[in-house]
Amino acid sequence: MSELHKRIRRKSLHDKIRPVEDVIPLFKHGMSLGWSGFTPAGYPKAVPIALADHVEKNGLQGKLKFNLFIGASVGVETEDRWASLDMIDRRWPYQTGKNIQAGINEGRIRMGDRHLSMFAQDLGYGFYTKDNGGRLDIAIIECSAVTEEGGLVLTASCGAVPEIVQIADKIIIELNTSIPSYEGLHDIIEPVSPPNRLPYLISRVDDRAGSPYVRIDTDKVVAIVESKLPDNGRSFSEQDDTSEAIASNIVDFFKFEVDNGRLPKSLLPLQSGVGSIANAVIGGLAKGPFSGLNVWTEVLQDTMLDFFDSGKLDFASTVSLSFSVEGFKRFYGNWEKYSGKVLMRPLSIANHPEPIRRLGCIAMNTPVEFDIYAHANSTLVGGTRMINGIGGSGDFLRNAYLSIMHTPSARPTKTDPTGITCVVPHVPHVDHTEHDLDVLVTEQGLADLRGLAPRDRAQLIIDKCAHPDYKPLLQEYFDMAKKDCLARKAGHEPQLLDRVFKMQVNLAKNGTMKIDNWDI
Amino acid sequence: MSELHKRIRRKSLHDKIRPVEDVIPLFKHGMSLGWSGFTPAGYPKAVPIALADHVEKNGLQGKLKFNLFIGASVGVETEDRWASLDMIDRRWPYQTGKNIQAGINEGRIRMGDRHLSMFAQDLGYGFYTKDNGGRLDIAIIECSAVTEEGGLVLTASCGAVPEIVQIADKIIIELNTSIPSYEGLHDIIEPVSPPNRLPYLISRVDDRAGSPYVRIDTDKVVAIVESKLPDNGRSFSEQDDTSEAIASNIVDFFKFEVDNGRLPKSLLPLQSGVGSIANAVIGGLAKGPFSGLNVWTEVLQDTMLDFFDSGKLDFASTVSLSFSVEGFKRFYGNWEKYSGKVLMRPLSIANHPEPIRRLGCIAMNTPVEFDIYAHANSTLVGGTRMINGIGGSGDFLRNAYLSIMHTPSARPTKTDPTGITCVVPHVPHVDHTEHDLDVLVTEQGLADLRGLAPRDRAQLIIDKCAHPDYKPLLQEYFDMAKKDCLARKAGHEPQLLDRVFKMQVNLAKNGTMKIDNWDI
Repeated sequence: MSELHKRIRRKSLHDKIRPVEDVIPLFKHGMSLGWSGFTPAGYPKAVPIALADHVEKNGLQGKLKFNLFIGASVGVETEDRWASLDMIDRRWPYQTGKNIQAGINEGRIRMGDRHLSMFAQDLGYGFYTKDNGGRLDIAIIECSAVTEEGGLVLTASCGAVPEIVQIADKIIIELNTSIPSYEGLHDIIEPVSPPNRLPYLISRVDDRAGSPYVRIDTDKVVAIVESKLPDNGRSFSEQDDTSEAIASNIVDFFKFEVDNGRLPKSLLPLQSGVGSIANAVIGGLAKGPFSGLNVWTEVLQDTMLDFFDSGKLDFASTVSLSFSVEGFKRFYGNWEKYSGKVLMRPLSIANHPEPIRRLGCIAMNTPVEFDIYAHANSTLVGGTRMINGIGGSGDFLRNAYLSIMHTPSARPTKTDPTGITCVVPHVPHVDHTEHDLDVLVTEQGLADLRGLAPRDRAQLIIDKCAHPDYKPLLQEYFDMAKKDCLARKAGHEPQLLDRVFKMQVNLAKNGTMKIDNWDI
Repeated sequence: MSELHKRIRRKSLHDKIRPVEDVIPLFKHGMSLGWSGFTPAGYPKAVPIALADHVEKNGLQGKLKFNLFIGASVGVETEDRWASLDMIDRRWPYQTGKNIQAGINEGRIRMGDRHLSMFAQDLGYGFYTKDNGGRLDIAIIECSAVTEEGGLVLTASCGAVPEIVQIADKIIIELNTSIPSYEGLHDIIEPVSPPNRLPYLISRVDDRAGSPYVRIDTDKVVAIVESKLPDNGRSFSEQDDTSEAIASNIVDFFKFEVDNGRLPKSLLPLQSGVGSIANAVIGGLAKGPFSGLNVWTEVLQDTMLDFFDSGKLDFASTVSLSFSVEGFKRFYGNWEKYSGKVLMRPLSIANHPEPIRRLGCIAMNTPVEFDIYAHANSTLVGGTRMINGIGGSGDFLRNAYLSIMHTPSARPTKTDPTGITCVVPHVPHVDHTEHDLDVLVTEQGLADLRGLAPRDRAQLIIDKCAHPDYKPLLQEYFDMAKKDCLARKAGHEPQLLDRVFKMQVNLAKNGTMKIDNWDI
């Protein structure tokens, strides 16, 4: 018996095995599709690539377009290639890739952005496919095995699979025989609509509250395609001095909080984003004074394996394994060591406020920029250009025990090494409000905003977080705004609306946010 | 035995009974205080009024100032009078009153604004009183009885009492003998800090998950003061045609959702704010086609009594009874009829995302304004002047099954009956983001935004919600912004930052948002 047949323990499904070219005719222009996958891991590859080849070969660009609903971003060889072949009409919620971003910002692709926990839920309610009776036409799900009951054993992520298979009319399974069976690494809670929901009985990061596979109606399975394609692993972000300085500020803050009795010695479950700062923070903790740590997050990067190896990290709950190619090798090569310390959950659970608040997570994420009153922009450069999406940052920052955002204080432009200040008077797009954030950190310092009124927050943020090149400009703006608004008896949160975006306008025109003065 | 002694069933506390003037010396300049109370109900009156009299009589204005932490707003005869006597340094989180608002916006009172569910939790963590060792110096709690165990039976609200009594060094009880004992109307869950929290076992609005009283350390009780002062009831908002039209749009939408299978026939638990639109919506539902309804909310207004009387409303869970003087008479006069259908919860539970998401609430709130991409401003007029605070609107709108905001499309200024458009290109302050809101409603129409990308949302909001006086201006702005941003390949959410607040600047200068053109 082939490996493929062995992995499909539900024997009656064996006659659904098809070569990939046989599924192409199932796809019609305008269909709504749901894929497995989350922050390039566990996504279908064989079918999307075959569809892209089909479009390319037959000149079908723009004639075979789909509405694409996926837990978050998937590999560039799939969604980004689809974007370049004009195969995407709508795309929800979080994406990555040069071509898909160009399509979104030039108006060809209609992207909807939503907190990931709400995305999964609302997709399941049929809110995004109202015109299609609340249904998805086809789901494409990467699996590593199928149980006797027909349950789907997923691969390196859970994404929004439980919701997707519920509302899909047809299911195509991509059975990936090139990776081990992940059976036992997932904890799946079947979505139930209100008013009949029950509590999620998760009180520790390692609590199981569901089943190890996704229950489906096997009658919906129209094809099983074998895949041998690996995930297009996430490349590792370089460490740098700025990230190290930020991480050091954060670790010092944790020590201070433990000393003052506001955090337990083993801290609280950590949520950490992706990128070099997140890596530096994890690196700092792996070398730091805390032990018995836990992680409750969306994505595990390679540094988490070092964190496990340091003996400081006890357990990690995540939506996906977002390793590099090297990282996956290391994970598979030490399966016994790592697999017992990891549980993967769907984003409707991992990002749900219920466990995040109950566990008291410490949330850490990088914005594009934040402002002097602690609003943060995570999605739209210049207030208009989409990068990736809000992802789960709002789910975590709104509900964490401690909500931390970290960024370099300045970024380079083509003509000015500190042409962009990440601390601005007013962010041009707000993804996280002043009501959500506790602590802001740059390489310059850390501002603990808890208990501070807006004007006190502003002064602390300017003092602690702003880059020296911008401190005088920000102080001048804040002083002018205070004077004007308090005199008008409207100064709870002073702003000057007639010039508030002057720095951003200058950046677009002159390549730097360093303005000569604040005159209108 | 006096009524006071009868109500204090914990006999050992009888010798803590004091005349109100005896507690005045307990209060020192700079202390941090926690009060019971929520949206003028269940707040202490005798002690705050006696303190105000003391300050006034002895010319202590500015010399006896406090940091005031209360679940939300309380009666004007207490906090607002304190503001007028310069007795407040910091005030968290939501307030009402002319004097307190003046103090906040002129820079005398440092107000912190926070989602109510987070406020309660963070207060309990000691985050707002870090400089005071995470403690409150004195709690003043209005009660209607004290149990044998020393448990506090609260009155017409629960507010943040469970957190306040945990972190208070001293507790003063105001035992109100002028109202019935509310025993049995509250469901109190004692706050536990992470990582040791358990699920809140609430799966229906009428589920009890805690105890009918607040457990305290009775050694902290330094005085019991008798009070005979009633709550300063909320005056009833007038109905008007605009509110009726908005309510009618919402009821029609509910019918449509039921017909399309996206809502059960008995809808889902309703959260409704305060004011004339909320009253009109409740009035519309009381006459509407739905029955077996439930309410999960923060405040019950008088109209809820009519809603019960209509036979359509089965049960209501709330933080407070925010009735008018007449409403309280009606409630007390029909105790048997109403009291079995109402449960009051602390805001740490009522506003907690856990039950709100599980129950699948329908959230309805009024903002100051919203913008064409569905960001809403709930707190700061002109982006700088505080009105009341965000309250629980974010807790509900972020987590509801359906998140609805409703407002008149325009408001009058002194010189122009439609001088203010409530639909703007960009709100100058964001309390609720585009990632949070599903449906926007004005008297002009309803925009169902679910599943729409930003530019599609903008067109629908302009078409359905904007006032005819502003529709051409908004359309012109949107078209200009689209053209500019898409050409720059930065058009996911088009804006023109060099003129985005032109309407607001014009309002401040010329008393109307009707600008002549969009030129810079």
